[in-house]
Amino acid sequence: MIKKDFQEKCLSEETIFRGKIIGVYKDTVALPNGEKAAREFVKHPGAVAVVAIKEEGLLLVRQYRYPLKGDLLEIPAGKLDAGEAPGDCALRELREETGYRGDLTTLGAYYSSPGFSDEVVHIFWARNLVWDPLGPDADEFLEVEVIPWQEALQMAAKGQFRDAKTALGILLVQGALK
Amino acid sequence: MIKKDFQEKCLSEETIFRGKIIGVYKDTVALPNGEKAAREFVKHPGAVAVVAIKEEGLLLVRQYRYPLKGDLLEIPAGKLDAGEAPGDCALRELREETGYRGDLTTLGAYYSSPGFSDEVVHIFWARNLVWDPLGPDADEFLEVEVIPWQEALQMAAKGQFRDAKTALGILLVQGALK
Repeated sequence: MIKKDFQEKCLSEETIFRGKIIGVYKDTVALPNGEKAAREFVKHPGAVAVVAIKEEGLLLVRQYRYPLKGDLLEIPAGKLDAGEAPGDCALRELREETGYRGDLTTLGAYYSSPGFSDEVVHIFWARNLVWDPLGPDADEFLEVEVIPWQEALQMAAKGQFRDAKTALGILLVQGALK
Repeated sequence: MIKKDFQEKCLSEETIFRGKIIGVYKDTVALPNGEKAAREFVKHPGAVAVVAIKEEGLLLVRQYRYPLKGDLLEIPAGKLDAGEAPGDCALRELREETGYRGDLTTLGAYYSSPGFSDEVVHIFWARNLVWDPLGPDADEFLEVEVIPWQEALQMAAKGQFRDAKTALGILLVQGALK
């Protein structure tokens, strides 16, 4: 564990924004040396992502990502609803986005941007896929793309996936398959 | 590429917060079906992270991460200064946080949280490490930890690193070393 005197102590909290998805805060903290500093950060409900491989290949989802002002190819993923267990969320998102359900194995839970956000992404591996669709969210528009698994591995190794959880999920399953 | 009609068109922009590090915005957009929706998002300057392996093992940094209210073990990393090239930033952060410089190879650039942020993390591999320290930032308090490379690989495979860029960087170097 970290030396106790590395902790930053909260002196005052300021709520900047309580949004539908994110909350934004600016706290004043005491640093280990006694100086004051500001800490801007984002609270997020957490998310899931799922590596699901059919005979034809890896199931991917292409969608418009507004923060990037462009589209992005990702493994199926989504935010946790209030009180929702990560495994339930992963199954729901997989069914909504690809139409498949599967047996889930956890591949870990990861902080996506710990410098400014508490978001945790729970990554799962879905096996024994069966068709069992659930309608997508009303404001979700996406296309499923299937990439042969060996090709997906090569793309991940070459840094060709632009989404961190997608590259990480693929490489974790590659290791687990050995 | 994505179907053109998946794009979300900005109807109006609202600036919520211009912080020292992040900017927070809430835009109203037109969805492909003509409906309106709100999009909350965070602009971030981008970041770098560096996988650096000495004979003794992988160089890691443990530091207090205020959004998590706890400490986290990560590869050396940091935010891009305005106008700074990712490679220059990687070298600077590696020197500031561990005291070493090295020859850099890119391992890709990844969106860390594309659902709500435009943050890109540029991951590098640093080789031929030589001691060439640069003082850390005044408000940065951290400890360097060295973990034998084979142990780091096992920890990454088991999901024992809680930081996404750290697990991803380690697995990318594992693939490149084969």
